Amino acid sequence: MLDKSYLSPVVALAMLIDSVRNHALSAERLKIEESYGRIISKEIIADQDLPGFARSTVDGFAVKSADTYGAKETLPAYITVKGEVFMGEEPGFSISAGEAARMPTGGMMPTGADSVVMLEHVQTVSESMIEVLRSVSTGENVIQRDEDVSKGAIVIRKGHSLRPQDTGALAGIGITEVDVYRKPIVSLISTGDEIVPPSEPVKPGQVRDINSFTLAGLITEEGGVPVKKGILKDDYATIRREVENSVDDSDMVLIIGGTSAGTRDMTAQIISDIGRPGVLFHGVAVKPGKPLIGGLVGTKPVLGLPGHPAAVVVSFDLFIRPVLRNLSGINDERTFRKTVDAIMGKGIASAAGREDHIRVYVEKKDEGYIAYPILGKSGLITTLVRADGVVKIPGNKLGLDPGEAVTVNLF
Amino acid sequence: MLDKSYLSPVVALAMLIDSVRNHALSAERLKIEESYGRIISKEIIADQDLPGFARSTVDGFAVKSADTYGAKETLPAYITVKGEVFMGEEPGFSISAGEAARMPTGGMMPTGADSVVMLEHVQTVSESMIEVLRSVSTGENVIQRDEDVSKGAIVIRKGHSLRPQDTGALAGIGITEVDVYRKPIVSLISTGDEIVPPSEPVKPGQVRDINSFTLAGLITEEGGVPVKKGILKDDYATIRREVENSVDDSDMVLIIGGTSAGTRDMTAQIISDIGRPGVLFHGVAVKPGKPLIGGLVGTKPVLGLPGHPAAVVVSFDLFIRPVLRNLSGINDERTFRKTVDAIMGKGIASAAGREDHIRVYVEKKDEGYIAYPILGKSGLITTLVRADGVVKIPGNKLGLDPGEAVTVNLF
Repeated sequence: MLDKSYLSPVVALAMLIDSVRNHALSAERLKIEESYGRIISKEIIADQDLPGFARSTVDGFAVKSADTYGAKETLPAYITVKGEVFMGEEPGFSISAGEAARMPTGGMMPTGADSVVMLEHVQTVSESMIEVLRSVSTGENVIQRDEDVSKGAIVIRKGHSLRPQDTGALAGIGITEVDVYRKPIVSLISTGDEIVPPSEPVKPGQVRDINSFTLAGLITEEGGVPVKKGILKDDYATIRREVENSVDDSDMVLIIGGTSAGTRDMTAQIISDIGRPGVLFHGVAVKPGKPLIGGLVGTKPVLGLPGHPAAVVVSFDLFIRPVLRNLSGINDERTFRKTVDAIMGKGIASAAGREDHIRVYVEKKDEGYIAYPILGKSGLITTLVRADGVVKIPGNKLGLDPGEAVTVNLF
Repeated sequence: MLDKSYLSPVVALAMLIDSVRNHALSAERLKIEESYGRIISKEIIADQDLPGFARSTVDGFAVKSADTYGAKETLPAYITVKGEVFMGEEPGFSISAGEAARMPTGGMMPTGADSVVMLEHVQTVSESMIEVLRSVSTGENVIQRDEDVSKGAIVIRKGHSLRPQDTGALAGIGITEVDVYRKPIVSLISTGDEIVPPSEPVKPGQVRDINSFTLAGLITEEGGVPVKKGILKDDYATIRREVENSVDDSDMVLIIGGTSAGTRDMTAQIISDIGRPGVLFHGVAVKPGKPLIGGLVGTKPVLGLPGHPAAVVVSFDLFIRPVLRNLSGINDERTFRKTVDAIMGKGIASAAGREDHIRVYVEKKDEGYIAYPILGKSGLITTLVRADGVVKIPGNKLGLDPGEAVTVNLF
């Protein structure tokens, strides 16, 4: 039964996070185009300027800005066109007072010119003479050499999760490979005498393995590598052997199942028997997910998850995902989630002293998003299929009223 | 120059979306564990019930509920224990009036029993006799056969993007493979006489290809397959040939580069020369990203993107991502984005008549998130590296004030 002596989820998470902090994974070197979403293991420093030369940002004429001072439509500045700059080529001439060069956007500025007059502000008098109708200031319409990146600057910090535009920036300064942490490996051990693989027919009393598929997907989405260690019978020696192997060959171990009191106790026993410090907590004040076991063998987190599908998803969100993020080497205290603000389309009650996580589906109406609770036992997988996300009811609240504003954590 | 005659982004997007609607991609069959994030091409119907038998949701004793009516601590119901049910096994006996079976959570209900008394509400008198201290109602603590899924029910709709818990549900009803749309293929054609691959040294006047890396990552994140068609010189025949090939072998074509007026015009010319209807619009009232060209060859979208890195990212967000979602077969009008509510830490001005997209970085402070504009020419890639997301200033606003509440669209 739920009661206030169950550990608060905040405390439980802190115990787990503390245990994995500062245990860096090894690194590997990847091509930038294979490193989207990977975590940089070593700060990246530019070994050259970007751009490597001053460039025009517009189509027009490169000039010495001093030659345009005071120029206006009624009193244009007359400037001699010395030549034309072509894309991708170094100008073969320099600009002196009274001279201009025809420039494409992105073209390299000729020596001597310090600014570019836009095409729209120029009248052509002859092939070799233009009227400039407006003045430009020094540096106008020019990206300076090293304005984007200076040689020696840190371009990407250690612990940064590489986004598409970051790989673009690296390409821009000629960096084609990066050092990233390897992905954390998470072992999934399904337990239960009644569990069979989905490919096999079920006999009466048996059910198919659901949770290892859900967890494998969630782990993959979070940048981990799930490794399924099979479906084991509820037997101390069998499960212990596989947990020991998994602690050796992975970074985190999830033991799934054991919804009945006896098997839960066995899971806890195994975690504590394998190595110190063993079980950190057994039970959290969260519904669904109350029977969660949090443990540690050496520095490796070993968690015992209740077998109910909804409890698995909520436990992942509250505990496994943050631990995985820490394990992965991400150095960013801000964890942005996909959320949507909605109002409750229906009320729902909650018991005091525990954090309730209510599955909801979200409808878009003219007045905004409406969230409807999906009722159903936490053992039902289809409540998760119909749900778009979860609304949290804190332990000190007794429910949500119809019309109450909530933030939905989207799946 | 920007002016109000540029097409509104809403109209531009609608033109593109209309063109790709109802052009379904072909399907392929995948294992469920390889189909996370893929789009279901055919509704999935259960060919069996889940669970296939009534199960207990608690540890306790299966009984006929009528035998417990009126039971309380001071007046318990005495019931004979007929046997024990084991996980994964069919009970070898049935329950008659006055009889009970010891049940594990998840165990199969024996015939005759209709409810389960929780262990906590039972006193053991002898091995074959219990006192029930509280009454249960019919169906209490039981998941009925087919309560989760009934045979013949639609489990997953066509057009649904498969989430981890969805694959769990499919595993639960023995479905191990699904039909999904193939991923849309997007050709990336980089153009520009000055562009060289990042692996090559740059000569004065040359710059490295940045945008194809950024775009390849964005397309991959969105579930597409980017195919780089190389870096082409600004030459009509060369580019036209590659665009024609790409229209044949991919679902969408992006021509990147051509920041100067002349090359933009050439891109538009090529799109219209290859096939009807050709260019749909040339220029949108958005900054950065104004010179965007939207076109269509037959039913294939062909877009010309300006070469500025920031414009590429904003154009992707506003136009390419929604087109890609439509192409992919997703059937969900709700597009949830990763956003965060923040207040502006600094004001910023914007010109009327165009939609401005301001890159910002987001700091977490005690009072909440603060968004700071990142200033810099849109040709600078590092403004994108420093940014966490983008804030939109609608065309009818003249800027954002310091302290103004905004929603940041996160990268």
